[in-house]
Amino acid sequence: MKKKMLLVLLLCFAAMTAIGAQGTNENIGSLVETMEIKTAQPKYVFMFIGDGMSHVQTNAAQVLNGNNTKGAISLSPLTFTEFPVQGLQTTYDATSFCPDSASTATSLSSGIKTHSGVLGMGVDKTTKSENIAEKLKKQKDWKVGVISTVTINHATPAAYYAHVPSRNNYYDIGLQMVDSGFDYFAGGAISKDADQGKTSIYTLLEQKGYTVTTTRDEFLNLNANNAKVYAQSPRLQDGGSMPYAMDMEDDDITLAQLVEKGIEVLDNEKGFFIMTESGKIDWACHANDAAAEIYDLLAFDEAIAVALDFAQKHPQETLIVVTGDHETGGMTIGYAATGYNTAFDILRNQKLSYVAFDQKIADLKKGNPHLSFNEVMTLVTENFGLAAPSSTKTNDASLVMTEYEYTRLKDAYVQSMLPKTERVKDEVSSLLYGGYDPLSVTLTHILNNKAGIGWTSYSHTGTPVAVYASGIGAEKFSGSYDNTDIFNKLKNLVGVI
Amino acid sequence: MKKKMLLVLLLCFAAMTAIGAQGTNENIGSLVETMEIKTAQPKYVFMFIGDGMSHVQTNAAQVLNGNNTKGAISLSPLTFTEFPVQGLQTTYDATSFCPDSASTATSLSSGIKTHSGVLGMGVDKTTKSENIAEKLKKQKDWKVGVISTVTINHATPAAYYAHVPSRNNYYDIGLQMVDSGFDYFAGGAISKDADQGKTSIYTLLEQKGYTVTTTRDEFLNLNANNAKVYAQSPRLQDGGSMPYAMDMEDDDITLAQLVEKGIEVLDNEKGFFIMTESGKIDWACHANDAAAEIYDLLAFDEAIAVALDFAQKHPQETLIVVTGDHETGGMTIGYAATGYNTAFDILRNQKLSYVAFDQKIADLKKGNPHLSFNEVMTLVTENFGLAAPSSTKTNDASLVMTEYEYTRLKDAYVQSMLPKTERVKDEVSSLLYGGYDPLSVTLTHILNNKAGIGWTSYSHTGTPVAVYASGIGAEKFSGSYDNTDIFNKLKNLVGVI
Repeated sequence: MKKKMLLVLLLCFAAMTAIGAQGTNENIGSLVETMEIKTAQPKYVFMFIGDGMSHVQTNAAQVLNGNNTKGAISLSPLTFTEFPVQGLQTTYDATSFCPDSASTATSLSSGIKTHSGVLGMGVDKTTKSENIAEKLKKQKDWKVGVISTVTINHATPAAYYAHVPSRNNYYDIGLQMVDSGFDYFAGGAISKDADQGKTSIYTLLEQKGYTVTTTRDEFLNLNANNAKVYAQSPRLQDGGSMPYAMDMEDDDITLAQLVEKGIEVLDNEKGFFIMTESGKIDWACHANDAAAEIYDLLAFDEAIAVALDFAQKHPQETLIVVTGDHETGGMTIGYAATGYNTAFDILRNQKLSYVAFDQKIADLKKGNPHLSFNEVMTLVTENFGLAAPSSTKTNDASLVMTEYEYTRLKDAYVQSMLPKTERVKDEVSSLLYGGYDPLSVTLTHILNNKAGIGWTSYSHTGTPVAVYASGIGAEKFSGSYDNTDIFNKLKNLVGVI
Repeated sequence: MKKKMLLVLLLCFAAMTAIGAQGTNENIGSLVETMEIKTAQPKYVFMFIGDGMSHVQTNAAQVLNGNNTKGAISLSPLTFTEFPVQGLQTTYDATSFCPDSASTATSLSSGIKTHSGVLGMGVDKTTKSENIAEKLKKQKDWKVGVISTVTINHATPAAYYAHVPSRNNYYDIGLQMVDSGFDYFAGGAISKDADQGKTSIYTLLEQKGYTVTTTRDEFLNLNANNAKVYAQSPRLQDGGSMPYAMDMEDDDITLAQLVEKGIEVLDNEKGFFIMTESGKIDWACHANDAAAEIYDLLAFDEAIAVALDFAQKHPQETLIVVTGDHETGGMTIGYAATGYNTAFDILRNQKLSYVAFDQKIADLKKGNPHLSFNEVMTLVTENFGLAAPSSTKTNDASLVMTEYEYTRLKDAYVQSMLPKTERVKDEVSSLLYGGYDPLSVTLTHILNNKAGIGWTSYSHTGTPVAVYASGIGAEKFSGSYDNTDIFNKLKNLVGVI
């Protein structure tokens, strides 16, 4: 009731001022601003970071699920692209316009610019920058959740609890995770959890009272009674990460489920902050694998839908911010050979991620070290739909390789069958393969190009990144600003110093 | 005074509602919305369209003018990137996710989706869609200006006055320009002005009372007494367009000057609408020439600064909207060979646009049809800074070509010296040169790649496009929406039907 009285007083004051003053619009503007400060303070904050995700990654998902019929072209919007507020952030760090995930996540979490590779510290690699999650825990006793599809001590999640001069100090980051006092960790495994024979981070977490789950059943049994949780994906893929969405099996735990469980564990009267990273959008884009990127982004969107569902039950108290840390791969919808045409349906012929395909080839090589090109071509057609120029094996002409594509594939096959040490290492092979397995990266290149998708890099790029916001305080995220401003806006909104 | 009384009533009503209702924020929201409708109606509207311009084109200009020193990296903001409101538009048309300038400009100007190539008509290529400029002229008697760096009957400017089934119907578009009744045309020439011996559009314009200027002095003498004006650039470059900003000479007329003169000619009590297109951002991106793109974008920004200067004198009456129609070239800041590094200063070695270089080579070939590779290399070093791998001619190691780059350049030289009909036309040469002169497109590719810039296409792409807005009603341009919504937002703001 107090708030409502204040509001009436403010309105009357504004009405009187409006009669006396010239600048009506300005008075209303400041009236509204004052009221926002007094009334709009979220107590449930969701921060979603799509690693490597900018406009093109997002739009590619909208195109794939859209209508591709000429004359009736349309996009299929995502949960977050329909958020009422949209902004734009610049992402450069102190080292580069094509920045690193450690430095950009540090900017997002704690509002400072630092060198590529540095986590939660300034350019001196010494001064710690307290991040938004730490402030909320300390100053407001909010519960904190950190979720990631990659390892939980990887750069982006670590930027919300760790302060180290190098993102590669995985064990140190693990120790800081143990000491964070945060309430819910979920996603991939812990990188180098027992580095050089030290006590495992898993053990240390349990000693601190964390319930550590590594099976589906254990995960499903978690609830609000579990004060401290680390829920690890029951199945792991490359580098201890969760499987790509397109490689998931029925009994895998999805990112959406991790967010849903996080809400269940963290929900409390004081408030919570949950950072959720979709880390393999970035990894897929590094490898120039559009299908793996798009399906992980769609799984990310499903996780955001869970937060939106919660927000709809707590409309006056919830803020959801969705953004990326940088763009990866220089992805474009449009390619020199396809010109104004796109054919995204072609991507649906890809049955698994490049990583799963590499694994399949590696497994086969164990029993048969000298896979013939014909044997490989059978796998290519099975898993990517692509057919040789003279092939009669496909009814879909769009999947028949050109002679140039076929030559590139044969060259890549030759390289992939060699031990890594014997492969050609020159400027051209570096441009063609970027350090990835020559065969699978050539397959995704060919398939992506046929769909009308181009890539310029195997690294991060300097493309600005979109910000989407919904809920209490969302309007603050409109406009163009720097990534450090995201921290500042959040800090002001939740009222910490 | 009437307005102020209404405001007080509204405020009191809102205050009472606030006491009685639960959703305080919602009531304030609708109060503010009501007030906006009552008070905010611009009477001077500037629409700026950077053809082919999305986030990367814009950010490339910010990087080039920024600080590239490691440890002190920063961007140099542009006039429009500092606008308070920023939005995002999707650009697909009825034909393609990689759309055309005619259809996208039709969406921007008149709010409908149509087929690639169609101007001011629906997908039936018959039904005319009245555009915002026509509505303002007819319903509110505003003056209208249409400015473009390319020919004035090219797709984008034409979308503000013409209705034809094909953008290539240049003469018909010219006839509709004559009949538009618009007040100020400025920029490039008229394409096919006397097609197949018909009466020249220039003649018809003069018969309709237009003052047509083609010299600098005539242009400078224009003023508010000239009721109807067509000011053509005194010097023309490719296809009758204004010269690229980087090719301009001291006595050329800039885009900023055209806007400034437009304001002088059009300023009146009822209001004006000015559409200004920077059309060669697109052309430079088609040709994958980053320097030409960036300098034209900076010239575009200077033109926007002229509008902002006017807005600051008329703050309660002016709206400026800046956007693109689509992205061109799949430009990225970041390239496979440079990874996380960029070196944009390298672009400053380029002294002229690819078009001006092509012209230089063509002029030399007139006197010396068999230019040797050494002769060409001298020109290459003079105009692009690039040096041969073994060269001692440069002190700057970053400008020394790799063996692979040098081989590409030599291959391109061989092709460029052949008559067009004798050049290799296959899949690879199409990817390498995209129909452009092999020599110059290879030079910009090499220079751009060394700077850390990649390209994926010679066509338009499906990248979403940024919208920047400043002034009365600007807040309506926040968020994610379709290009057709830009017309709808403008229409509602200025109060036409």
